[in-house]
Amino acid sequence: MSKLKIGLVQQAVANNDKQISWERTAKEVTALAQQGCQLVMLQELHSTLYFCQEENTDYFDLAEPIPGPATDFFGHLAESLDIVLVTSLFEKRSAGLYHNTAVVFDGDKGMVGKYRKMHIPDDPGFYEKFYFTPGDMGFEPIQTSVGKLGLLVCWDQWYPEAARLMAMAGAEILLYPTAIGWDKTDTPEEQKRQHDAWFTIQRAHAVANSLPVIVANRTGFEASPQAGEPGIEFWGQSFIAGPQGEVLALAASDKEENLMVELDMARCESVRRIWPYFRDRRIDAYDDLLKRWRD
Amino acid sequence: MSKLKIGLVQQAVANNDKQISWERTAKEVTALAQQGCQLVMLQELHSTLYFCQEENTDYFDLAEPIPGPATDFFGHLAESLDIVLVTSLFEKRSAGLYHNTAVVFDGDKGMVGKYRKMHIPDDPGFYEKFYFTPGDMGFEPIQTSVGKLGLLVCWDQWYPEAARLMAMAGAEILLYPTAIGWDKTDTPEEQKRQHDAWFTIQRAHAVANSLPVIVANRTGFEASPQAGEPGIEFWGQSFIAGPQGEVLALAASDKEENLMVELDMARCESVRRIWPYFRDRRIDAYDDLLKRWRD
Repeated sequence: MSKLKIGLVQQAVANNDKQISWERTAKEVTALAQQGCQLVMLQELHSTLYFCQEENTDYFDLAEPIPGPATDFFGHLAESLDIVLVTSLFEKRSAGLYHNTAVVFDGDKGMVGKYRKMHIPDDPGFYEKFYFTPGDMGFEPIQTSVGKLGLLVCWDQWYPEAARLMAMAGAEILLYPTAIGWDKTDTPEEQKRQHDAWFTIQRAHAVANSLPVIVANRTGFEASPQAGEPGIEFWGQSFIAGPQGEVLALAASDKEENLMVELDMARCESVRRIWPYFRDRRIDAYDDLLKRWRD
Repeated sequence: MSKLKIGLVQQAVANNDKQISWERTAKEVTALAQQGCQLVMLQELHSTLYFCQEENTDYFDLAEPIPGPATDFFGHLAESLDIVLVTSLFEKRSAGLYHNTAVVFDGDKGMVGKYRKMHIPDDPGFYEKFYFTPGDMGFEPIQTSVGKLGLLVCWDQWYPEAARLMAMAGAEILLYPTAIGWDKTDTPEEQKRQHDAWFTIQRAHAVANSLPVIVANRTGFEASPQAGEPGIEFWGQSFIAGPQGEVLALAASDKEENLMVELDMARCESVRRIWPYFRDRRIDAYDDLLKRWRD
């Protein structure tokens, strides 16, 4: 299959009512499928507010098992639309053991794989290390009827290692559901640098691996539950880039939006033929990549 | 030292007369030093034309040993100006054994280190595998009086592994002397994608490692010695980026130009404090980075 129509849904989230969220999301996914999308991706933790703005044990109630209500809902949706659907949820694996997990459904094949976020951030307003155990499934692409998906989540996007391992395992697309935004107390210049860094490094994963990259980011302002904290202005700007990092579609920063692109999957190989980075990796000299630091 | 004034020289090369080339270059280096630059970098193989447009045994005559005339010349220059100077040359290590080598001089300390290009390209018009044995010195930063330099060369710029290894060994700046350009028979759209890819991935090395990046690229058109070949329009656009990948200075594509920037080296640590990527690398799951392919 040389042509692949893909889409993503960029959303603002108003509360933690999952049922309402799922119905809203299903409407957008359906619209994309009706326009011919064979693969649709949702943003990170799309069912609820970004609850990691504080460390609060009550929020573990938002988690659910796999399979569970969320995977039932989106599994049925993917089947009814006959598409590949990439979702994200707060996974309860056991009491006291939770993950930030992306799940892939493939038409009537149902759930064909999941990825547990491997790199977990923790900084003011993004207290993820309290909630999410780092993934223990490694960097393994998920085979679907539209190709092998190199699915990663948010903080993973800062790690060239993660994208590389997915590419080396045969991933044909890199996918990043994400939830990142601005602290409004930062200067506009700092906000611009942060967004540019995020945009640049993910486009660079496309370049380094000659693969398309899809990024679905949250939009809208979510106040902090803690008095005096600035909250997060999620910066949207979801995008789809081709295998040279070229931007094929870009969403607004401040509103909900769907993106849709028809990828020419044959271009990935033609890019790799002329600039064949994998031919020349110096694997004889990379041992220290497995160290914490070279000291 | 928190503030560091750095510069680079972007040049067009007209012929293989090294003495003329060195004198022209010395004039630019001197001008930058007189403006206060403590560190100056030259482009890849700056002494001659980019001879790798064809495979011709005569061009091995352009190579020279280390130490040799080029290192004598630039060593004296760095000493007389009391600066750190990063140069590039075609190194003859023995008959039949040549490298693409960058050399660092540090005021009256003389030559303080060299880096032999580790990743060697080979594509039409860039027949480097014929000339250059891949480096055997690994990815080791070079200590100078202005800090530890993570010096890499051209094709290395496409490898996140190389930048990462330099950063993990304590490099404080990433430096790329390079010689890359357009094949004018490519479409303008393809030319734009290629340049954007190059610009993006090097800015991303800054982002991934929270380090400034300096890139000195050749400019000007060099005809191919082979009839019917398009030659190379070197695309210039040398640049200096800060530790979030933000572009601090950018040269034109089509003319000789020097760039100069005062870096605030304290910013690197402040960037790493808020987005501490090195804290979270999953070194327990990176083993396969040492493989050729995960098959």
